[in-house]
Amino acid sequence: MRATEFLLATEKETPADAVVISHQLMLRSGMIRKLAAGLYTWMPLGLRTLRKVEAIVREEMNRAGAQEVLMPAVQPAELWEETGRWFQYGGELLRVKDRHNRDFCIGPTHEEVITDLARNQLSSYKQLPVNLYQIQTKFRDETRPRFGVMRAREFIMKDAYSFHADEASLQITYDKMHEAYSRIFTRLGLDFRPVLADTGSIGGALSHEFHVLASSGEDDIAFSNESDYAANVELAETVAPAGERPAATAELASIATPAMTSIEDVASFLKASPAQVLKAIVVRGEHTAEKAEGEPAPVVLFLRGDHQLNEIKAEKIAGVASPLQFASDAEIAAIGGVSGFVGPQGIQAKCYVDRSAAHMANFICGANAADTHLTGFNWERDGELPEVRDLRNVVAGDPSPCGKGTLDIKRGIEVGHIFQLGTKYSEAMKAKVLDENGKDRTLVMGCYGIGVSRVVASAIEQNHDDNGIIWPDAIAPFNIGIVPMNYHRSDVVKEATEKLYTELSAAGFDVYLDDRDKKTSPGVKFADMELMGLPHRIVISDRGLEAGNVEYKARRNGEAQDIPLADILDFLKQQIG
Amino acid sequence: MRATEFLLATEKETPADAVVISHQLMLRSGMIRKLAAGLYTWMPLGLRTLRKVEAIVREEMNRAGAQEVLMPAVQPAELWEETGRWFQYGGELLRVKDRHNRDFCIGPTHEEVITDLARNQLSSYKQLPVNLYQIQTKFRDETRPRFGVMRAREFIMKDAYSFHADEASLQITYDKMHEAYSRIFTRLGLDFRPVLADTGSIGGALSHEFHVLASSGEDDIAFSNESDYAANVELAETVAPAGERPAATAELASIATPAMTSIEDVASFLKASPAQVLKAIVVRGEHTAEKAEGEPAPVVLFLRGDHQLNEIKAEKIAGVASPLQFASDAEIAAIGGVSGFVGPQGIQAKCYVDRSAAHMANFICGANAADTHLTGFNWERDGELPEVRDLRNVVAGDPSPCGKGTLDIKRGIEVGHIFQLGTKYSEAMKAKVLDENGKDRTLVMGCYGIGVSRVVASAIEQNHDDNGIIWPDAIAPFNIGIVPMNYHRSDVVKEATEKLYTELSAAGFDVYLDDRDKKTSPGVKFADMELMGLPHRIVISDRGLEAGNVEYKARRNGEAQDIPLADILDFLKQQIG
Repeated sequence: MRATEFLLATEKETPADAVVISHQLMLRSGMIRKLAAGLYTWMPLGLRTLRKVEAIVREEMNRAGAQEVLMPAVQPAELWEETGRWFQYGGELLRVKDRHNRDFCIGPTHEEVITDLARNQLSSYKQLPVNLYQIQTKFRDETRPRFGVMRAREFIMKDAYSFHADEASLQITYDKMHEAYSRIFTRLGLDFRPVLADTGSIGGALSHEFHVLASSGEDDIAFSNESDYAANVELAETVAPAGERPAATAELASIATPAMTSIEDVASFLKASPAQVLKAIVVRGEHTAEKAEGEPAPVVLFLRGDHQLNEIKAEKIAGVASPLQFASDAEIAAIGGVSGFVGPQGIQAKCYVDRSAAHMANFICGANAADTHLTGFNWERDGELPEVRDLRNVVAGDPSPCGKGTLDIKRGIEVGHIFQLGTKYSEAMKAKVLDENGKDRTLVMGCYGIGVSRVVASAIEQNHDDNGIIWPDAIAPFNIGIVPMNYHRSDVVKEATEKLYTELSAAGFDVYLDDRDKKTSPGVKFADMELMGLPHRIVISDRGLEAGNVEYKARRNGEAQDIPLADILDFLKQQIG
Repeated sequence: MRATEFLLATEKETPADAVVISHQLMLRSGMIRKLAAGLYTWMPLGLRTLRKVEAIVREEMNRAGAQEVLMPAVQPAELWEETGRWFQYGGELLRVKDRHNRDFCIGPTHEEVITDLARNQLSSYKQLPVNLYQIQTKFRDETRPRFGVMRAREFIMKDAYSFHADEASLQITYDKMHEAYSRIFTRLGLDFRPVLADTGSIGGALSHEFHVLASSGEDDIAFSNESDYAANVELAETVAPAGERPAATAELASIATPAMTSIEDVASFLKASPAQVLKAIVVRGEHTAEKAEGEPAPVVLFLRGDHQLNEIKAEKIAGVASPLQFASDAEIAAIGGVSGFVGPQGIQAKCYVDRSAAHMANFICGANAADTHLTGFNWERDGELPEVRDLRNVVAGDPSPCGKGTLDIKRGIEVGHIFQLGTKYSEAMKAKVLDENGKDRTLVMGCYGIGVSRVVASAIEQNHDDNGIIWPDAIAPFNIGIVPMNYHRSDVVKEATEKLYTELSAAGFDVYLDDRDKKTSPGVKFADMELMGLPHRIVISDRGLEAGNVEYKARRNGEAQDIPLADILDFLKQQIG
C-alpha cells in the first residue's frame, strides 16, 4: 500500500476524552474514529489488524473442529422470554420493536438463538458433539461506554457454542477450546494467562478467562509463584491460616472511640495495626427457600481490618441479596447495631466470619454502642464464632490454594472466556436429543467467547512505547514500512524502492510505502510509522544504495543497521518468520 | 470436510412457505435456517458460499483502489435528521432508543455515517478521490419479507462511497466501479447485465443496476438485439414512431358503449384492436412552484390502449403527485370527465400524451359522457394534441433508444447498483474540502452497492435443476465431493480415498468426503451432493480401483466417466481452472 493511496489519518494531539493508552493510540494512529458514545468506525488501518485477528481466530476454531455459522444480530424476544433473560438482562439489552410492533433485541450474545437452532436441528446423540461458532457484531448498551473499543457498545465477538450428550463429552470439547484459545493468543503474539473464573450470571459449572496481562487491566489475577495456578481474584480461594488460633490472653475492655468509624482511625488511635481490628460489613438480605416471608433480614460479614470483602463470594451466600447491597443505618439499628461500631457481641442477625478473621485473637471490634469499641476480644470466650466462610480477596503473599507457593497479583484484560454451561439453556428451551436407548436427553452445553475487537486494544495496551504502537508481527496492519529518501528526485532511489516494494509484496508481506512528496519530511514519515506500530522499517537512500545497502530498524528494540539490498528479503523473512 | 464432522442438514421435503426455487433449495440443502420473518441463520454450508462471494467482492474492490472500513450498524438519529431521511425513510428504518432515551436506527445504508466521516476526515482536495467500502450487516424492516435471503430484513451488503472534488473525478471512479462490478459478477460465474437504471429516492444523476438474469427476477430488463444497450424497463426510453402521423380519414362519431369501461371491452365491442383505442389515466396532482395554492388539480395521461403506463416516468412530470395516486371518480367528475369514459374532448385538466399515442389517427376514445365513446377521433382535427411525453413501458420489439436494433425483454434480479449521488448528502451535511485556491468546495459523491447475501440466492435462481443447486466453481461451498463405496469395509477403498482427500485438499480444493457408514446408501449420498450443488463428484470403488480408475461426474452436464486415479488431480485442475 502506498501512503498516497491510503486514507492516512494520523494525528499529533492526544484526544482529550481518551483515557487509556490503547484508545489514545488507536485514535492518533487513525485506526478508529468515533461515531457516537461507544460506537466506532474502523478505518482502513485499524480494520487490517482486526481482520488479521479474525483470521487467526477462525483458523484455530476450524482446526479445533468447530464449524462457522452466522446468526442474525436482531433476535426475537420470544426466545429470550423462554430463558427468562428478556426480564433479567437489564438495560444492556437493546430492545426494539419492529414495524408490526413485535419485540426484538440487538443480540449481546446468542445462547438463545443457537439453542433454538440446536433443538430444531439436532435430534439424535449421533449428531453430537457439535461446536458452532460465529464472528459477529454484538451490541451491549453499556451505561458508560469507555476506553474506545475496549468497552464499546457495538463490538465484534467470536462466540462458540457446543452441544453434547453428557458432561464427559463437554469436558473434552472444553479442553480442546482451552487449547485452541492458548494457540490463538500465542499466535497473536500476546502475553496472556488462562485463569479460573467465576461463572457469573451466565451460569454453569466451570469457567476460565483468558487475560492479556497489562498494567491497565481492569481485573486482578492471582498467580502461584510455584505452579500453573492462576485465577481471577474474584474467584481465587483464600486458604485458612495454618495452625490453631492464638490463645486468648488479653482482657476484654470497652473503650471510647468518639466518631472513629473507620478501621484506620480506630487502629491508629489504639496504636494497633488494621490487622488487629475486626471489620464488620452489614449487607441486605434476600428471601431463601426457608425464609420466604416478611422483610429479609440483614446479614453481618466479619473480616480482618486489612482485608477486602470479595463481593462475588459474599453474593453466593444463601440469604444475601445479589447484587450486594449495603444496609442502611436504620437497618443496622434494627438488628441492635450502630453504624460504624458494629461488632459480634449482641448483634441480632445471621453472621459469617472470614477464614482469616476467624483466626484472630485478642482483637479490637465494634461494641454495638455509639462511639465505643471493645479491645481484647476473643471468639468463643467473648462471643460465639459465626459460621466461617471464605469472604475476602486474596492478597499478594497469600498461600496459593493449589498448595504450592504463594500468590502474586497482576492486572489483566479479559479477552476470552470459556464456560461449561451445562443444561441451563437447553433445559429452559427444551433442547433434547434421543439417546442410544431412544430416550430424551437434555443437551449439555458449553460456550466460548473471544472479544475480537477488544483483542486489538489489549494488544496495544501490552505493546507500546512513547512513540506509539509496537505491533506483534502476526497482527501488524503492515509488516514492513519503506521510507525512500528523495523518492521524487532520485531515479536510483525510486527504481530500487519500486523493485523492493514489488518483491516484498510478492513474497506475501504487507508493505507500506511512504511515497509522499518532499513536503512531508522524513522525520514525519518516521514518526507516523512508529505511531502506526509497523514492526520493520526500511530506509532507502542514495548514500546507502551507493554501498549496496538499505537501512533496517526493528520497531521494538531496534538500532538502525545497514543490510545489503541483495540480502534484505531473506533477512526480513528471518525477522518476521 | 468429512460428512461425519459436518453439520449436514439436507432435507427431502420442500418447505411449505418457500415460494422461489433459491429459497427452497437453500433450506433443503441446509444452507440457511429461518429464525424469524426475514431473519436467517447461515449454516456452515451456506456460509462457505457467502464467504467466497465476500472474498471475490473484497479482492476486486481492493484492486480497484477502494479501501475497506467497517462502520457501526447502530447509527445516531442526529445524522439522519441532518439529511432529512429520519423523517422521510418510513417504516423500513428500524428506529430504536438507547438506555439514555436517545434515538438511533439500525442502518439500512450508510450515506449519513460515511459523509460524517468524510467531513471530519477530509479537508483538502489533495486527499481526493477517496473510495471507502465495507462488507456489513444491514437491516431493512420490510413490510413483507419474502423469498428467503432474497428479500430478508437482515442481510449482508457491500456498500462503497466515493468522494471527489468534481464531477469529472466522480465519473472516473464510477467507470472503475462499473468495471470492477463486471469483473466481480464474471468471476462469480453469473450471467448478468449492467443496465441503465432510475436513480430513485437515493437521488443523483446517473445510475446502473447489475442484474443476474433469471426467469424468477422481479425486474424487467430491456436489451437491444444489436448493441450493448440495456436498461431497466422502469427507465428505458421509448422512441417516437417514425414518420408522419397517418392522415385523418374517418368521420368523428359518438357511439353508445354501455358499461364498457375497459379497453378490452370497447375494442372487442367495436371490433378494433386495443392499439386503436386511446387509454386515459387520471392521476392526482401535486403543488408546483407555479401552482402552490389550493387543491392541486388532477392530470390526465393518454396512452395507446395496448401500452402500460410507466409510473416512474409519470412521477417525474411536474405537477403529478409522487408516489403516483389515481384520481377518484369524484375528482374525475370535477374536471368534466366520467370514470371509464374519459377522453380528450372537453376535459378540463392539464393533459399529456405518450409519444406513441400522439401518433394515433382515426382512433377510439372516451367521450366524457356516461356509456359513450367517440370513434374516428383525430388529434388537432377533433381536439388539441396535449403535451407529448414518454409515458409508457417499452415492449419487446420496440426500436432501441440507442438507435441500433430492437428491444428484447428479460427478467433480472438486481444484485448491484452504482449511483452518481452528486452533492445530495454532502450539501445537506456540509461536507467540504478546500480546493486549489483555498476555497470551500462541496464534496461530490458516488455510491456503489452489492447485495452480497442476495448474490448467493440469485446464483441459485440461475443455476439449478430438478435435483438441486448447480454451483459455479468460484462460489461452490465445496469444489469436489468424494463418495467412497464400501469405505468402512474395503481397506483398499479407504486407503485410496484418504490419500486422494489429502492430495486434493493440499492442492487447495475444498473437498467434501461423504464418509457416512453403510446405513446411508450411495443413492442418498449422491442425492445430497446434487442437492448441495457440488460441481465435481468422484466415486471411488473396489471395481474401479482394480482398473486403476475413479469415476468422475460433473454436476452441470455430466455423464459419469472413468478417469485413471493417477490423472485425477490434473484432470480436476483442468476442470476447475
